Amino acid sequence: MRRNRHFYDVAEKYLFLEVQEKKEFFLQKNPDAKLISLCVGDTTEPLAQTIAEAMQESASNMATSSGYCGYGPEVGLLKLRLAIAEKIYNGQFSPDEIFISDGAATDIGRLQTLFGAGSKIAIQDPSYPAYLDTSIITHGKKSVILLPCTPENNFFFDLNRAKKADIIFICSPNNPTDRLYNYKELDLLIQFATEYKKVIICDSAYSFFVQEGLPHSIYDVEGAKNVAIEIGSFSKMAGFTGIRLSWTVVPHALCYPKEKTPINPDWTRLVSTFYNGASCISQHGGLAALSDQGLAEIKKQAAFYLQNAAILKRGCEASFETFGGVNTPYLWIALKGKSSWQAFDELLERCHIVATPGIGFGPSGEGFLRLSGFGARKTMEEAAQRLAQFQFT
Amino acid sequence: MRRNRHFYDVAEKYLFLEVQEKKEFFLQKNPDAKLISLCVGDTTEPLAQTIAEAMQESASNMATSSGYCGYGPEVGLLKLRLAIAEKIYNGQFSPDEIFISDGAATDIGRLQTLFGAGSKIAIQDPSYPAYLDTSIITHGKKSVILLPCTPENNFFFDLNRAKKADIIFICSPNNPTDRLYNYKELDLLIQFATEYKKVIICDSAYSFFVQEGLPHSIYDVEGAKNVAIEIGSFSKMAGFTGIRLSWTVVPHALCYPKEKTPINPDWTRLVSTFYNGASCISQHGGLAALSDQGLAEIKKQAAFYLQNAAILKRGCEASFETFGGVNTPYLWIALKGKSSWQAFDELLERCHIVATPGIGFGPSGEGFLRLSGFGARKTMEEAAQRLAQFQFT
Repeated sequence: MRRNRHFYDVAEKYLFLEVQEKKEFFLQKNPDAKLISLCVGDTTEPLAQTIAEAMQESASNMATSSGYCGYGPEVGLLKLRLAIAEKIYNGQFSPDEIFISDGAATDIGRLQTLFGAGSKIAIQDPSYPAYLDTSIITHGKKSVILLPCTPENNFFFDLNRAKKADIIFICSPNNPTDRLYNYKELDLLIQFATEYKKVIICDSAYSFFVQEGLPHSIYDVEGAKNVAIEIGSFSKMAGFTGIRLSWTVVPHALCYPKEKTPINPDWTRLVSTFYNGASCISQHGGLAALSDQGLAEIKKQAAFYLQNAAILKRGCEASFETFGGVNTPYLWIALKGKSSWQAFDELLERCHIVATPGIGFGPSGEGFLRLSGFGARKTMEEAAQRLAQFQFT
Repeated sequence: MRRNRHFYDVAEKYLFLEVQEKKEFFLQKNPDAKLISLCVGDTTEPLAQTIAEAMQESASNMATSSGYCGYGPEVGLLKLRLAIAEKIYNGQFSPDEIFISDGAATDIGRLQTLFGAGSKIAIQDPSYPAYLDTSIITHGKKSVILLPCTPENNFFFDLNRAKKADIIFICSPNNPTDRLYNYKELDLLIQFATEYKKVIICDSAYSFFVQEGLPHSIYDVEGAKNVAIEIGSFSKMAGFTGIRLSWTVVPHALCYPKEKTPINPDWTRLVSTFYNGASCISQHGGLAALSDQGLAEIKKQAAFYLQNAAILKRGCEASFETFGGVNTPYLWIALKGKSSWQAFDELLERCHIVATPGIGFGPSGEGFLRLSGFGARKTMEEAAQRLAQFQFT
């Protein structure tokens, strides 16, 4: 057995592990420092009561003869797939177009196995590292086409660069830049994918933060069902980062551009073979999150995190060029010539704030930092204060 | 984007989905039939109270500021890794050699991505379909070497057939044949893997059913740490088929046979990239299962399922040549010339019992049926009675 040679082409450590190690090293040297972490985009507010109660009930039922449940369907509980179809997609999908999973990262990885060998994969640069890393490990670095998204192109990539791709990953609103593609831009993308026979994979993990009147899903735009897979998640939407629950939509209308056969049966086969379903307790939590009461509670949480981002943003704007904090709780800070890791170190050393270096999200993230508004209100206020008084050397 | 051409080489439907459809079709025609399903190996006894309570507490804590937890380590909670190291492996591993996952199937799939392109994968025939299907979908059918395990070779494959393999999947005790490899046989395998530079992947999902004094893990035999990965699971051990929790051991001593570099860091990277950790609630359930109280409760359940298998076996032995029911709750029935699907249909039509066709576990499973002892005691008694009076045409 040889080593999968693609491992030579990915960074040795996952971005957030590297940040974590730097943070721990700093704390060893400065044990009394009051560090504020604005690094990982991890939910911090207590779980909505409705959701916790549903999961307690589910766990309690499991200890009874009548309530015990073993293997569920690999694709997820029908009730949950129906609820997602209705509450997230206004009934435009049947439940067998919706697949429950334990997290977006897992499904991004599994999608890589769906693609045939030799597939070319275009990825927004910067973006959440899993698209790039899973592409390289599975298909090799030559499979990857980066699509720079910078202030210069208003974070909308040059479609010409995606012409050689088979698959285009987009994340809208984007992690880390916060950029939401509007109806017109999504329409452009869909027309492009239709004309040039691409499959779009849209990660909508942050769409619950998007305001009314703006697109929450690529399927809000005509024609998307023929060209797009969408990944959604309860992680940021309902505080499920530790509970693990997500979904993937593979519409019946979506076909392999070359073979013209539907992708949905292959995805069903893949999920049924490489997976055994999400935890039934997490799924009952997901159902509760989509109840009227649950939705009301999690909407308040989303608003809370966005308010955090607004507070941080006010702190930053005096000193830095700041994007985002509107469609996600993320700020994207332009560093004006300083490298991401230099700025990371300086912010850590002098301001005791842990940011995420933009370069970790791709080469076009160099010269940026991401700040996360997930956290306690007081932490954000304190961070905003520190940032308002801070200048890079 | 082209279809991954390997999809053409796997059966269109996953085995148990196909059985399920046959069963539903039969019930439509015979709505009053009192069907007994001895098909899927799915736990049926209520969850141990200790485990359910730990998960309720975990869910309840999530709704409090102090108890909320977001992302855990991708590799799993340290406490749980320590508990597995201590309770399952008598402290012979450090926690960073143990990786928590959401199920054996998921890790079998992810291991396929660890292997370099061109790897040859040897698989016991018959065995749990995921090894074969994930190998074909990921690496193509030419990557697979089948290792027939039949009554003729006492279910121990010819090592010569595995000489061209890079990886050897073994499942001990085996699903579906129940065959446990003893110390001497494991030692033979380890010597073979050492001499011929193979990596063994040992699925020990059923080892909790194995009697004292027999090997519960490949690591019970000297030298295994240098050549073997082991996959363990709470599914059958503690009734977690719906809750989803498993682990994989990748010892520090295990190296790629060609490069002589350790595999553990790549597996850490792979898990951190393609995965975001198991549900924290499931992990707290797993911790409770490994407490003294939890272990006492789940040992009773394992004994109960084995008693079921013994009851079934007594029912079968008058009419059929029957293997197993000793190291797992599975019986492996030899059909003396009848095909698996013929026997499946006949048992369904005339005896109203749903079995699993042996052919579904590989070509050497043709001419066998698997019967599962997971179920209620009364069901097993009724099934045993029906089987005792049954003869194939």
